[in-house]
Amino acid sequence: MESKLQVVYRLTVPVEEQGAFARALLLEQTVETPEEVALRVPAVRERLMGEIVELEPLEGGGARLALQLPVETAAVDPAQFLNVLFGNASLHDQVLLEDFELPPTLMAHFPGPRFGIEGVRKWLGVPDRPLTASALKPVGLSMDELVVLCRSLAEGGIDLIKDDHYWGDHSFAPFEQRVRRCQEVVQEVSARAGRRIVYAPSLSGTPSEVLRQAEIAQRYGVGAVLVAPMLLGLPFFYELVTRYLEVPVLAHPSFAGAQRIRPETLLGKLFRLFGADMVIFPSFGGRFSYSRATCRKLAEQARRPWGAYRPALPLPAGGMQVERARELIEFFGRDVMLLIGGSLLRAHPGPELTARARALVESVVEAAAALSNSDAI
Amino acid sequence: MESKLQVVYRLTVPVEEQGAFARALLLEQTVETPEEVALRVPAVRERLMGEIVELEPLEGGGARLALQLPVETAAVDPAQFLNVLFGNASLHDQVLLEDFELPPTLMAHFPGPRFGIEGVRKWLGVPDRPLTASALKPVGLSMDELVVLCRSLAEGGIDLIKDDHYWGDHSFAPFEQRVRRCQEVVQEVSARAGRRIVYAPSLSGTPSEVLRQAEIAQRYGVGAVLVAPMLLGLPFFYELVTRYLEVPVLAHPSFAGAQRIRPETLLGKLFRLFGADMVIFPSFGGRFSYSRATCRKLAEQARRPWGAYRPALPLPAGGMQVERARELIEFFGRDVMLLIGGSLLRAHPGPELTARARALVESVVEAAAALSNSDAI
Repeated sequence: MESKLQVVYRLTVPVEEQGAFARALLLEQTVETPEEVALRVPAVRERLMGEIVELEPLEGGGARLALQLPVETAAVDPAQFLNVLFGNASLHDQVLLEDFELPPTLMAHFPGPRFGIEGVRKWLGVPDRPLTASALKPVGLSMDELVVLCRSLAEGGIDLIKDDHYWGDHSFAPFEQRVRRCQEVVQEVSARAGRRIVYAPSLSGTPSEVLRQAEIAQRYGVGAVLVAPMLLGLPFFYELVTRYLEVPVLAHPSFAGAQRIRPETLLGKLFRLFGADMVIFPSFGGRFSYSRATCRKLAEQARRPWGAYRPALPLPAGGMQVERARELIEFFGRDVMLLIGGSLLRAHPGPELTARARALVESVVEAAAALSNSDAI
Repeated sequence: MESKLQVVYRLTVPVEEQGAFARALLLEQTVETPEEVALRVPAVRERLMGEIVELEPLEGGGARLALQLPVETAAVDPAQFLNVLFGNASLHDQVLLEDFELPPTLMAHFPGPRFGIEGVRKWLGVPDRPLTASALKPVGLSMDELVVLCRSLAEGGIDLIKDDHYWGDHSFAPFEQRVRRCQEVVQEVSARAGRRIVYAPSLSGTPSEVLRQAEIAQRYGVGAVLVAPMLLGLPFFYELVTRYLEVPVLAHPSFAGAQRIRPETLLGKLFRLFGADMVIFPSFGGRFSYSRATCRKLAEQARRPWGAYRPALPLPAGGMQVERARELIEFFGRDVMLLIGGSLLRAHPGPELTARARALVESVVEAAAALSNSDAI
């Protein structure tokens, strides 16, 4: 049991078909041949078949299916891990990936967050209170407009200022120039304010382009980077994190929602497993439709004790209002970074935006002071 | 119009909310700020906002929404293309990516298949008839067992023998050894038979590992490679195809089904756009639930005239039976490669399997002869 990968699927299959479907899915995720073909090879029969651990019909219909799958195939590389977890299974409309548990042998193959919540807090010099973040957008701003925007947010006291995820190496704000100038701004404001403000550029493109951007960004001394793991591919995200990044990484959920994987499992757990220090997700009460329960579970998955992995910092986002800071902190607790873009950016860059950012930061400090010592979630 | 990316979404949103939802989705896929923030910057207002081209309520409920999105953001790199196409939109449960059309300026950024159907046919020396493929599985076979299996299929006359997608660089059949020995077998049988049989190893892992495997595979002279673009990430797939591969590439659908993107658009169109020469998909009548209509459209998307892109060869798979060869050819026509694994592999490796493979090949030849000159689809 301890040496197997345990995966839980939710099946929307009529009760009379569940047994056969479960056996077929077990074959699909392991040997992908008729059972008789697999059984006639001793090494396969003994080590690579997996087994059904639980098949429980659910009240509202469908079933919960737990499989144990062989580590021999899942551990061989990060792409194979995903393949065993949900490769062909994803092609079945009736299957949802609900959750998974790794045995220690498999955990050793994954980095988890390199900084985690504690590391990010140390990095930013904010030991205790909830953190704030905002975004440089819309894409299409000129370099000078970007710089004014970045300065306004930095002077307002926002902890982390990230690129919008639509930024690439655009002619109107080339990557290197963008990084140089935004980083200059946050360093200058940081020096004056006597505390660290982090600028996180968005890395985007093919692997060679992303590695080029990562090198430039780190050379200019950025304090973090933004990456969308599902756009770039999780195996590349793994390599980027384990081999190339020296700074914390924020994971953006772009292209991730379409996966028939529970959001708390994909964003809260898989992204953490692959090394995200901070996980951005669309929170309840914004432009997206994740429920409060989903958001609670997602934050829980990101922060709960899990093997030797550091906790990842949840960043509720996607249409969060400045005025909701207190509510969000009461819900998510101290170990959270509020990522607020549009609601801040309604204010014009310059003194108006700086003041609005400052008001946000103050309301976060107040809300944190009002929190009981235990986290809200 | 000609310089914009046109994207069609299917919305499951009540009719009274469709207008507001469409406007919100347009902002989501472009500037991702409140409209007022975007409008106050002239460069953004003029070039980066996109527009709603069509919003048509559908009879059964929901709506069809066509947006024109700016090429300025979509063209900057392959990851940004996906971001604009379905990045944040994918996080909305009510949105399905139905289809898209590229303007010529954007098409120039993508390779499409390097070989295409004609190139693959030339490569294999099969100008006209439907083609056959099978798989080396289950994972867990020893090197010697793999070689016997590979030889049986090659001697049976199968055109293309691919690794199962669960193969990685396993201790029980290390990548280099597997490639060397399987390639030896197909070369030897090819030489004797006087026609080319292709072995396609599966490339899996992080980008650096996949590039290492690609280099080894091409050094040993393999005739094709198998890759799962959604597992590895489409931007890396793009880079692999445009920079590193000299042989045709088969795209495997693993991890792809979970995307809330119509299968014909994702597998038939996006994979082709990114450079797949051969596209494997779960066909009707097998282990998966794609309908005949979906399979027809998928094959159509893969093969239809489309800009300067070569057609990609469809490989119906996922539980195809040897006995269905004729039916599949009548349905898919000549330009198809039947990928049959388990149904062949029920026969024991050696003379029994060779005979079963040969029977398949003969039935393909017969079915092709019975086809009228026009393709069936």
